[in-house]
Amino acid sequence: MTRLGVWFLGVGTGVLLAASGASADELRDQAKDLFPPVPAKVAHVRGQPVTSGQIDLGRMLFFDPRLSASHVISCNTCHNVGTGGADNVPTSIGHAWQQGPRNSPTVLNSVFNVAQFWDGRAADLREQAKGPVQAGVEMANTPDRVVATLKSMPAYEAAFEKAFPDAPDAVTFDNMALAIEAFETTLVTPNSRYDQFVQGDDHALNQEERRGLQVFIDSGCSGCHYSSNFGGQDYFPFGVVEKPGAEILPEKDKGRFSVTQTATDEYVFRAAPLRNVELTAPYFHSGQVWDLKQAVGVMATAQLGTEMPEGDIDAIVAFLKTLTGERPEIDYPVLPVSTEATPKPDFGSLPTK
Amino acid sequence: MTRLGVWFLGVGTGVLLAASGASADELRDQAKDLFPPVPAKVAHVRGQPVTSGQIDLGRMLFFDPRLSASHVISCNTCHNVGTGGADNVPTSIGHAWQQGPRNSPTVLNSVFNVAQFWDGRAADLREQAKGPVQAGVEMANTPDRVVATLKSMPAYEAAFEKAFPDAPDAVTFDNMALAIEAFETTLVTPNSRYDQFVQGDDHALNQEERRGLQVFIDSGCSGCHYSSNFGGQDYFPFGVVEKPGAEILPEKDKGRFSVTQTATDEYVFRAAPLRNVELTAPYFHSGQVWDLKQAVGVMATAQLGTEMPEGDIDAIVAFLKTLTGERPEIDYPVLPVSTEATPKPDFGSLPTK
Repeated sequence: MTRLGVWFLGVGTGVLLAASGASADELRDQAKDLFPPVPAKVAHVRGQPVTSGQIDLGRMLFFDPRLSASHVISCNTCHNVGTGGADNVPTSIGHAWQQGPRNSPTVLNSVFNVAQFWDGRAADLREQAKGPVQAGVEMANTPDRVVATLKSMPAYEAAFEKAFPDAPDAVTFDNMALAIEAFETTLVTPNSRYDQFVQGDDHALNQEERRGLQVFIDSGCSGCHYSSNFGGQDYFPFGVVEKPGAEILPEKDKGRFSVTQTATDEYVFRAAPLRNVELTAPYFHSGQVWDLKQAVGVMATAQLGTEMPEGDIDAIVAFLKTLTGERPEIDYPVLPVSTEATPKPDFGSLPTK
Repeated sequence: MTRLGVWFLGVGTGVLLAASGASADELRDQAKDLFPPVPAKVAHVRGQPVTSGQIDLGRMLFFDPRLSASHVISCNTCHNVGTGGADNVPTSIGHAWQQGPRNSPTVLNSVFNVAQFWDGRAADLREQAKGPVQAGVEMANTPDRVVATLKSMPAYEAAFEKAFPDAPDAVTFDNMALAIEAFETTLVTPNSRYDQFVQGDDHALNQEERRGLQVFIDSGCSGCHYSSNFGGQDYFPFGVVEKPGAEILPEKDKGRFSVTQTATDEYVFRAAPLRNVELTAPYFHSGQVWDLKQAVGVMATAQLGTEMPEGDIDAIVAFLKTLTGERPEIDYPVLPVSTEATPKPDFGSLPTK
């Protein structure tokens, strides 16, 4: 009930603002409060400094396919930093070509989300990183095998010791996750045109884009999609006013209900963060909508209960495209060489020939 | 017959040198002729300059999974520049989790090979690049679909026009291959300890490693594994003296015979280039030997007809590990965003649940 309360408050705020017809400065002031700019750097996580040793190790781990049982799939396979931090397929392909249940969320700016996964079942990126490594339809590995893999390579041992100098046993599954999280804190995309606008550059957004931002606020989108990430902060029913079709909202996936076992959490999902949204089609947890305009239309109907005028949808889409930020420069890592002690790849079931 | 002749000549040369007991300078002179150092840069291919526009485009293409039908597999999946330019599995996993027939050769220094693939069926990297994109067990795409994919993205069109400014139609399958080749010319690994040694640094190799180099020459390894790439220059029967077991040399894969349909090419393969060999286990076209020491022993028996003393094998292995060069620094590319016109991913057969 609290969450629904927040949601309606959000819509209410939007409606109040709708009447205002704000100037560029007024719009900027509204927007800055609702959606602060993305910082260029995240220096701390949970109050702890993120060190360069952890980031370097995390970068290696993020790109290392040997975290998977098959030695074929890395974190980057589904959260490809070259294509918006996601894999841009409906739902991801994993171990033995199994198709996962939900669309891969972008890793870009994910550090700003209140929790991870579409249902928020991981409190933070540290916890998130442990999921896909073990999921049978994703990397299909086990913590013991991952640790054995990492301990088999002296260069990894050294990198863990550098990243976690005070740990009596540096190479652990927990530290693997911490290092991946540390790397992921660097995957932020500052200085989008939207950010330039709220930081004072009137010319960063054209008139249509500013109108889109205003409509985004006034029509109630910002009731769920707020914060510097334009979402990712709380959970809301998908189809609160009108349920979308089963293709978009498959009946079997009850969202956050599977985490909380609370009836009011049926078909509840974390509001998708919208930074770089133009890079991350297809949309929604089911990944069945490829067109951003269609996605905005679905949201208007399902969440706001309105048939939004096409001109407003176009303006919102134009505005959303200003949320594409500067993507981080990433050196592709040189990975430690496997040794005799490294567990061999296990492909699982191969297709019959 | 010519090829066999060359091979026996190679062995003969090795035997002649065996008696010499060369000093560091003599060893260097021998080695420099047989295995020149890897250059730090390749500026031309087939007499044409390689441009930065082509390299930048090629880097995007090399890492772009949308060259595959599924949008999951990129060139880098099987030729991972972070793990020795190969995938370090017996034989590669491709489209719909099909397992390919041969071990993925390293892309590092591949520009120095006389031809590409284990059977040399592609004359150069340009031709090679077209193979896996179309192979049903690899990327399972078609030239038309690849071109449609690339043409659907304005940023790719611009990158092709920059790379091929004189082409009336820049975005072609041929130019895709040329750009990938251009990028691959940058994947060279100069300045290995071996290279430092032949360039004058006596201390770059220790005594055991120098002895290994001498044994490598004297025992006849260099009869096939010559040139700056320590191989990759010509074709030789695998098991010329004694056929290895069917696990290592599967009966069904007749090697270069499938290219030339010439009886003497049965079980003939391109001599594997040995640069960075410590990074590219498992070994041989079948990828069934994980241990470099075992691989050297197999070669001695199969190709030289000798049970090489363990001390000599150890020395050769020590020497081979000095062939690991400096790997190129690679910025992971930011890839163009798909558009409505981009062909959608096609996963092919999914496993039954």
